[in-house]
Amino acid sequence: MSTTLSDTPTLRAGAFGNATCLKCRECGATRELGPHYACYECFGPLEIGYEFGEVTREQIEAGPANIWRYKALLPVPDDIESSPNLEPGFTRLLDARNLAAELGLTRLWVKDDSTNPTNSFKDRVVACALSAAREFGSKVFACPSTGNLANAVAAAGARAGIRTVVFIPSNLETPKQVNSAIFTENLVAVDGTYDDVNKLASEIAGEDPGWAFVNVNVRPFYAEGSKTLGYEIAEQLGWRLPDQVVIPVASGSQLTKVHKAFRELVELGLVEDKPVRIFGAQAQGCNPVATAFKDGVDAIRPVKPDTIAKSLAIGNPADGIYVLDIARSTGGAVEEVDDDQIRDAIVLLARTEGIFTETAGGTTVAVLKKLTETGQLDPELETVVINTGHGLKTLDAVSGAVGPRATIAPTYDAFTAAGIA
Amino acid sequence: MSTTLSDTPTLRAGAFGNATCLKCRECGATRELGPHYACYECFGPLEIGYEFGEVTREQIEAGPANIWRYKALLPVPDDIESSPNLEPGFTRLLDARNLAAELGLTRLWVKDDSTNPTNSFKDRVVACALSAAREFGSKVFACPSTGNLANAVAAAGARAGIRTVVFIPSNLETPKQVNSAIFTENLVAVDGTYDDVNKLASEIAGEDPGWAFVNVNVRPFYAEGSKTLGYEIAEQLGWRLPDQVVIPVASGSQLTKVHKAFRELVELGLVEDKPVRIFGAQAQGCNPVATAFKDGVDAIRPVKPDTIAKSLAIGNPADGIYVLDIARSTGGAVEEVDDDQIRDAIVLLARTEGIFTETAGGTTVAVLKKLTETGQLDPELETVVINTGHGLKTLDAVSGAVGPRATIAPTYDAFTAAGIA
Ligand SMILES: Cc1ncc(COP(=O)(O)O)c(C=O)c1O
Ligand SMILES: Cc1ncc(COP(=O)(O)O)c(C=O)c1O
Ligand SMILES: [Zn+2]
Ligand SMILES: [Zn+2]
Repeated sequence: MSTTLSDTPTLRAGAFGNATCLKCRECGATRELGPHYACYECFGPLEIGYEFGEVTREQIEAGPANIWRYKALLPVPDDIESSPNLEPGFTRLLDARNLAAELGLTRLWVKDDSTNPTNSFKDRVVACALSAAREFGSKVFACPSTGNLANAVAAAGARAGIRTVVFIPSNLETPKQVNSAIFTENLVAVDGTYDDVNKLASEIAGEDPGWAFVNVNVRPFYAEGSKTLGYEIAEQLGWRLPDQVVIPVASGSQLTKVHKAFRELVELGLVEDKPVRIFGAQAQGCNPVATAFKDGVDAIRPVKPDTIAKSLAIGNPADGIYVLDIARSTGGAVEEVDDDQIRDAIVLLARTEGIFTETAGGTTVAVLKKLTETGQLDPELETVVINTGHGLKTLDAVSGAVGPRATIAPTYDAFTAAGIA
Repeated sequence: MSTTLSDTPTLRAGAFGNATCLKCRECGATRELGPHYACYECFGPLEIGYEFGEVTREQIEAGPANIWRYKALLPVPDDIESSPNLEPGFTRLLDARNLAAELGLTRLWVKDDSTNPTNSFKDRVVACALSAAREFGSKVFACPSTGNLANAVAAAGARAGIRTVVFIPSNLETPKQVNSAIFTENLVAVDGTYDDVNKLASEIAGEDPGWAFVNVNVRPFYAEGSKTLGYEIAEQLGWRLPDQVVIPVASGSQLTKVHKAFRELVELGLVEDKPVRIFGAQAQGCNPVATAFKDGVDAIRPVKPDTIAKSLAIGNPADGIYVLDIARSTGGAVEEVDDDQIRDAIVLLARTEGIFTETAGGTTVAVLKKLTETGQLDPELETVVINTGHGLKTLDAVSGAVGPRATIAPTYDAFTAAGIA
C-alpha cells in the first residue's frame, strides 16, 4: 500500500482539544502531538499532556450519556460528537449488595462495562484512537488484539467508514472471532501468541505510516480513553472517590489510566482528595505483574500465557512496571487466581448480581475474593470492582458447568413430576 | 409448593405510582390493580389505566440514565430506583447515515437495545414485571420464553434475590440457554414450540398464585415496560416523534406499546402531535400477522414456526390483532422476510453501523429494506428502526458466513504475502 502521509501530519486547530503535547513517562521530554509513541530521548512511552482550563461538574453533567461528557479531559476535538462513532460509556455502576454479603464486604460496587457497544471497555479506548486516526488522516484503522480490541476496532471502523484490519491469535474463542468478522472483511488470524501478534503489528506500523494501530503508534491517544472509567466511577458515586478499586491487568494500561483519572479529578477540584488503594488482577496462567509484585522486584519477566482468560493473555505487558508502581504506592496489590477460580467467579457474579461476565471479569471478581480472604483488601472500606467484558464472548468457559435443570414434555404432569415447584 | 397468597393481595400505598386500575382493551371494563390479565366481563386482555398528574420534560431529564426517568408514566412506585434491579434502558439512538445511504433513505435512526443489561429489550419489560411481583409478594419469578425473556428474568431475579424458574423450547440456541442457566438453577427446557411452553405456563399460573409469570399473569405490568422504547426515541430526537418506525413482532406487545407511548407523550403535551406510520416485521417462517395484513383480514390464523429468528417464533401472537389495527390505522404495514434475507441484513447492519444484531434485528432491518424497495415506506420521511437483541446470542446464524480472511505465520513476510495491504 502506498501512502503520502508525512511523519508529523498537519493538524487542524483544536484537533486534540485541551491536549497540548506528548510527554515521556520516563524522562519528561515533550514533543508535538502526532502518531508517536516512543520518546526521542530515551525510548520511554509517551503520554498526553494537557492544559485544562476550568472544568466544572455542571459542564460534564450537561453532556451526553456517553464518554464525550468528559471530552474536555480527553485528546479529542470539541465537535467529537458529530463524527460517527459508537458512543460508548456511561455504563452502569451497580450497588452490589448480594456479592458484598457473599464476600463479607461492607460496600461494593460493580462498574459494568459489559454493556458497551461491543461489550467490553475497549470501546472507550477505541473511540479516542478513532478520533486521533481521523485527525492524522490515517488510511487504515488496525490493531493486534487478544479479542475484545479487535471487536471494538472492527465495529467502530465500520461505522466511521474507515478501512479496518484486525490481527488476533488464531486460537481465539469463536464468539470473539465472529464478533470481529461480522464487522470487517479483514480479520487476520496469526499462528502465535498475542505477543507475537503485537510484534508483527509494530513492524507493519514501522513500515507504513498510513496505518493507525490503535494500541501501537496511536497508543498515547488510545490509552486516555480508559480514564473515562475512573471519571464515571467518581461521578456516579456522587463526585467522590472510592477507597479501593480492583482492575484486570493485561498490558496494564487501563489500571494506570484509572489511577490517572482519579488524580486529575482531584487536581481539577472535581472531587475531594483521599487515599485510593488500587489492586490489579491477573490469571495464574499469565501472571508476570503479579509475580513481580510478590517477589518485590521492579523488573517484569515475560511469560508464555496459558489460561482461559485469553483477553488478559499478554505475557510481556507494556505498562506492567507502572502497574507495580501504582499498586505499591497506593497500598494495593497485584494478585492472581487459577482457571477454576475464574469459572467459579463468573457463576458467582451472575447468581448474585445478574451480570454475565467473561473470563477477564471472572478473574477480577475471583481476585477480589482472594484479596478479601487474605486480608490484603480492607472489607470495611468502599470498594469498586470493574467488569470489563461480556460472558457471551467466552461461552465455552462455563457452558459445561451450567445448563437446563430438566427437559420435560409440555404438560402440567411432566412439570410436577420434575419436582421443580 | 404451598402459598397463602390471596387472589388480590393487599398493596402498599403508591405501589403502582400513577397507575389506578386495570382496564379491558375490548369492553373498557375496569378492575382493581392486581395479578390479573383477563377481563371479568369478556375475557379481553387488561391494560394499565393511569391518572397522570403533570409530567414535564425537565422532571424526566433530571432522572437517571435508565428507564426509571419515566417512572411517572409506568406502574411502579416512586422509590423504584432503590429496589435492586438491572437498571435497563436509555440505550443509544444512532444516526445511521451509512445504512440510510445503502437503502436510499433520507434520515434513519437505529434504536439499539442490544446493549441492555442482558442484551435485549426484554430487560425493560422484566424490570416493570419485577416491581409488580415484588408488590404482589410473589414467591417465584417466572416466564415462558423464546430466549431473551428467559435471560432477562433469570438475571433480574438473581439480582433481586427472588427465586426464578424459566421455561424455554428445548431447541433453543446454546448461547441463550447458557445466558439463562448462568443466572438460575431453574432453566426448564420443554420439548415443544413456544406456544406449547406458553400454554404450560398458563396452567401453572392458574394452579399457583404465588408464581408471577411475567408475560402471563403479570402481563399488563410487564407490557408497559416497552413504552420506554417510545419515550426514549422521542426524547433522544429532541422531544419529537419520528415519521415512521419499524418494529419486530412476536406476540406483538412491543409494537402496541411503542404506539401507546407516542400517544401518551402527545396527550401529556411533551411532544407535538403528528402522524407516525408504524410497521411490523416478521420472519417468513413465522408470519401470522404479516399474512393477515396482506390478506386484509382481521383474524389471525396461528402457524407452526420454522425460522432462524427463534426469538420471534410465536405462532399464536396474543397482541396480533392490535398490531394489525395499528399498522392499518397509521398507514404502516406488516411485512415478512426469509431466513437468507435475515442473515444478509445482520451483516449489512454490522458493516454499515458497527452493530451486531441477532436474527430478530436481522428480520427488522431486512423488512425495512423490503418496505423501502416496495415503496410501502416513504424514503423521504424520518425513520427509526428498532434493534431489539444481540448477535452473540444467535451466533450460528452467521458463523458460517463470516470468518478470518487469512491465517498467517507471525512474520512481516507472511503478512505481505497474504496481500492484505
Ligand atoms: C475484557 C478485558 N479486560 C481487561 C483488559 C486489560 O486491558 P489492559 O491491556 O489495558 O490492561 C483487556 C485487554 O484486552 C480486556 O479485553
Ligand atoms: C429480540 C426480540 N425482539 C422482539 C421480540 C418481540 O416482542 P413482542 O412479543 O413484544 O412482539 C422479542 C420477543 O421475544 C425478542 O426476543
Ligand atoms: Zn524519555
Ligand atoms: Zn372486557
